[in-house]
Formats: sequence, C-alpha cells, structure tokens
Amino acid sequence: MAINKKSLTDQVYSMLKEKILNRDVDLGEQLNTREIAEEHGISLMPVRDALRRLANEDLVENRPRVGFFVKNFSEAEVNDILEVRKMHEIYCLDNYFEEIDRGVISDLKDKFENGHKKYFTSYDSKLHKEIVLASHNNYLIDSYLKMINHYTMLFSYLNYKRSETSRQEHIDLIDCILKGDKAKAEKILYRHLDRVKIAEDASIKNRA
Amino acid sequence: MAINKKSLTDQVYSMLKEKILNRDVDLGEQLNTREIAEEHGISLMPVRDALRRLANEDLVENRPRVGFFVKNFSEAEVNDILEVRKMHEIYCLDNYFEEIDRGVISDLKDKFENGHKKYFTSYDSKLHKEIVLASHNNYLIDSYLKMINHYTMLFSYLNYKRSETSRQEHIDLIDCILKGDKAKAEKILYRHLDRVKIAEDASIKNRA
Repeated sequence: MAINKKSLTDQVYSMLKEKILNRDVDLGEQLNTREIAEEHGISLMPVRDALRRLANEDLVENRPRVGFFVKNFSEAEVNDILEVRKMHEIYCLDNYFEEIDRGVISDLKDKFENGHKKYFTSYDSKLHKEIVLASHNNYLIDSYLKMINHYTMLFSYLNYKRSETSRQEHIDLIDCILKGDKAKAEKILYRHLDRVKIAEDASIKNRA
Repeated sequence: MAINKKSLTDQVYSMLKEKILNRDVDLGEQLNTREIAEEHGISLMPVRDALRRLANEDLVENRPRVGFFVKNFSEAEVNDILEVRKMHEIYCLDNYFEEIDRGVISDLKDKFENGHKKYFTSYDSKLHKEIVLASHNNYLIDSYLKMINHYTMLFSYLNYKRSETSRQEHIDLIDCILKGDKAKAEKILYRHLDRVKIAEDASIKNRA
C-alpha cells in the first residue's frame, strides 16, 4: 500500500472496498482484523474503523465477538432483491417501451457484440438502467438506483458469474426493442432475470 | 408552548413537525423565522436550527436568501411519486393476491363502515400497506415503506382531501379481495390511485 495523505482508516477502507467490489474476496469470507493490520504494518484501530464503515454500507457484516465478514446473501435474500429489481424493470419495459432510447441501446448492442469481455458487466448494468430511465420518472429511477447501488456488490458477483451466457440474452433483448416487439422483449427480460436468479442461487450455495 | 427539558431546538422542531403533519399549515406556506421566534419568546437560533432539521427531512424547503417554506410539490412531482406507489401496489396485488391477509382486511372493512371519520386516513394507509405486505419480501416492503414514509406529508394531504369520496372505493376493493375477484380488484385499485392523482392535482394547483 503506497503512503498517501489520506488517513489510515480512509486508506484501509478504500483498499478493502476495492477488493470486495472487484471480487478479490468471496462472499461470506472472514476479514481478519489482526491479519490486515499486520500485513500493512499498522495498528488495529484504523482497520476496525474501516471495517465498521464498510459494515455501515452493508458491504461487510459485523458479528459481535466473532469478527467481520464480507456480506453474504441467503438464497431467499437474493431472490427477494432480484424481485424488487424485476418489478422496476418489467414495469418500465411494459409502460415505457416506446420511450427507450434506441440510439443508446444500438450502441450497447455493438459493444456486446464487439467490445471486450471485461466490460460486459458494465454494459449489462447500462442496458437494464436504460430501460428504467425510459420512465423519465426521477422518483422511480431513484428508487431503482438506490436499490442497485445498495447491492452493488451482490450484482457485481451475480453479473460476473453470468457474463458469458447472458451476452446473447442481452443482444436478443436489444433486438426485440429495436424491432418494436414488446411482448417478446418482456418475455426475454423475465426469463433473463429468472436465469440470473437460478444461476446465482447455485453459485452462492456452492460458496456457503 | 409548555416548558420541558428538551432543548429549545428540539421543542420547536417537534411543534413545527406536528403542525405540518396535521395539515395546520398549507403546502408551500412560508414559515417565518422571526415570527416563530417572537411568538414563543425565544431567539432566532433554535428556530433556524429546527427549520434546517426539517429541511433535511424534506418537510421544509430552504430557499437561500428568501426563507423557509413548507415543502410543496408540482403536479409532475405528485404524479411521479404516485406512480412509484402504484407500481408497488399493483405488482403485489397482481402477484400476491392469494397472500393478502383476509382477517386484517375484513377488520378494516368494518372500520371503514363503522369507524370514526377522523381515522379514515390511517385505515387507508393500512389497507394499501397490507397489499404490499402480502409479498412477504422485506426488500420490496422496505422500498415501499421508505417511499411512503419519506412523503408522509404529501400522502397525509392527499388522503385527507379525499377521505370522504374514497371510503366507498376502499370498501369495494376489500369486497373484491374477499370474493377472490382479482381482475376487478386491480381495476378498482388502478382507478382509485388515478383518482387520488386527479383530485390532488386540482387541490395542489389551487394552493399555488
């Protein structure tokens, strides 16, 4: 860790957050305070403060008298969070189909087809977000983004796991929107979001 | 204002909040710092602090160099907020119709028919909330309640305005659920939420 002018707590916080969001640690993995402190030659205090801050953001779970763990999600929690996401996206696809920005999604189609694999998860989020933006309802968009941002970590793990298989689903979805086939677009989005669920139930179960 | 052990700021804050939620002040009405301070024989500081706290909760709008005003909503904002509410309720009615607690809503029907008028707005919120609770999805319920709680004031004004006319709509909605007529229940809920919108556009326009 390079020395910089941020406080030790800030530095440890940023480093751990990056590790979590980059999936360098597993969901549910213990973050050992003493090990982190020793590894970086610092005292326990800033590490604990950083972990508490991450716990406040729901990225880390603080189990009193046990330790800090990367937040994990039960199957039921994953399904529940995905349902809230589905409710928003299906509502917007259904009610604002004509408002979806064709220019933006054509561009995304090109990126899915020709872009570098490592950016797929970002195209993925962009496409789903674009469907919700079509509502032009700031309160609805805010409700969606708050949820997405609050569970960034979960969606990062979910998208990553499926980025290969879901590429074609995204291209199909874009094609239906561009062709104006709303019924088929809804069917694909439904199936796509359910597949995320099923695939991830499995991957999360395997970790536990 | 009776003297108590809470700080002056806390007391002014509680008093103003109660006034707003009880609709003793109009949406958009100016809250004059100097007048409030003089009325209660206190300095400007605790009044300003209380108003700033209410502004943080979105109950009051702080217009720099002009003053503090009870938060008001444009027609477009009212429609947008109601759409988010509708999305949640219609989704749950559609997907969790069978899960709605028949005991609770039978009880609410009785209260709508025989209870005191002044409690109607509370029965109203309870009925709508009950539909969302049927999802048993804590993330979805949380998303709904956060929005409802954040705009408590708006819904309080909206419900109050319509409590007379909407009583029958609520009874009809309950009857449909009890009879198991999902299609008609959805129709009534849709129409009911749209009527809230139309009625309130008018009432809010009149204030402006």
